[in-house]
Amino acid sequence: MIRDKFKSFDISQEDIKLIEENAYYSSFDKNEIIYQNKKKCYGFVIVKSGSLRAFILSQNAKEITIFNLKQDDECILCSSCISDSLQLEISLEAKDGLCLLVIPAKVFSNLKQKYIKLSNYVLELLSKRFANSVFVMQQALFLPLSKRIQDFLQENAVNKELNLTHEEIARHLGSAREAVSRILKEMEKTGSIKLLRNQIIIK
Amino acid sequence: MIRDKFKSFDISQEDIKLIEENAYYSSFDKNEIIYQNKKKCYGFVIVKSGSLRAFILSQNAKEITIFNLKQDDECILCSSCISDSLQLEISLEAKDGLCLLVIPAKVFSNLKQKYIKLSNYVLELLSKRFANSVFVMQQALFLPLSKRIQDFLQENAVNKELNLTHEEIARHLGSAREAVSRILKEMEKTGSIKLLRNQIIIK
Repeated sequence: MIRDKFKSFDISQEDIKLIEENAYYSSFDKNEIIYQNKKKCYGFVIVKSGSLRAFILSQNAKEITIFNLKQDDECILCSSCISDSLQLEISLEAKDGLCLLVIPAKVFSNLKQKYIKLSNYVLELLSKRFANSVFVMQQALFLPLSKRIQDFLQENAVNKELNLTHEEIARHLGSAREAVSRILKEMEKTGSIKLLRNQIIIK
Repeated sequence: MIRDKFKSFDISQEDIKLIEENAYYSSFDKNEIIYQNKKKCYGFVIVKSGSLRAFILSQNAKEITIFNLKQDDECILCSSCISDSLQLEISLEAKDGLCLLVIPAKVFSNLKQKYIKLSNYVLELLSKRFANSVFVMQQALFLPLSKRIQDFLQENAVNKELNLTHEEIARHLGSAREAVSRILKEMEKTGSIKLLRNQIIIK
């Protein structure tokens, strides 16, 4: 897998071997906080299975999800090896069955200084996360909560069903459970959704 | 100036000459919108004089300032040459006496693919902006407006004086003028500031 991933960056056989020797798999419990405010630097990570949620946290423990990573997505945010300046106040939480392939910061940082294609690739990744984060926060700052809930339900429903509590939706959107419940009830009244126990069905 | 700036990136004499031949100065009127939603790509820019404000805009024309650039600051956000993925919904506005030194996107993009130190430098710049933007939006999302106004006054006062209207402060903070005026009047009552016409004095 590593060989496939890195061969397009013109990395020497020797350095690919170095990556393979140092990379390792790491599994996490559901809801485990795997990174918070630069406390631990993993390096370059690739999601092998499960998913990972990135969020920002306020002083009074309100949260807002800024992105989710799924299988094969790469993450560079928990990497102080990316940049000494990236003092991101971001937290990462493991979701169901998260397993990461980790290339340690020390190894990755050297490669990034050595291979220009890899450096430009990291720049692409960071740009994507940046643009996405700004977009999400722009929505959170400017869109009414009712519109954000509608969008969230559409984006996260599988076969028009969501198995999430109101509390979980509130945490994703950085809002209060009471406000989310009130809006969901209004939506049920107008007939656009049906509320069951820990389940929402879109009509 | 260009020679000084770029010599640390191990750029060849030939390419430095190429930059010098293609770089140009550009001046802007006060409050001119110099960039909006990728409409024009300048390339790599350095602020020679004046200042530049980056902000995000909502559909109903609410704004929030995410950073300001001053003399010698560099900007890479109005550069699709940085990354094809950087579809940032950001706007840049010229403030008093803005003059930019512009290295056109076409020239800069090639150099970034050629010199690894330059590529890593751009990564550093982007990381800083990313971290800063997340921080500002986190404040906007989670801090009460009264605290944000206090911080804004402290950060922007020169000799304890600010020459800004309530409307301008509201635009910086992505808030409504009425809310800003109300909080400023409360602060005046408690004796922490004095309000004059288009001027605020911190006591």
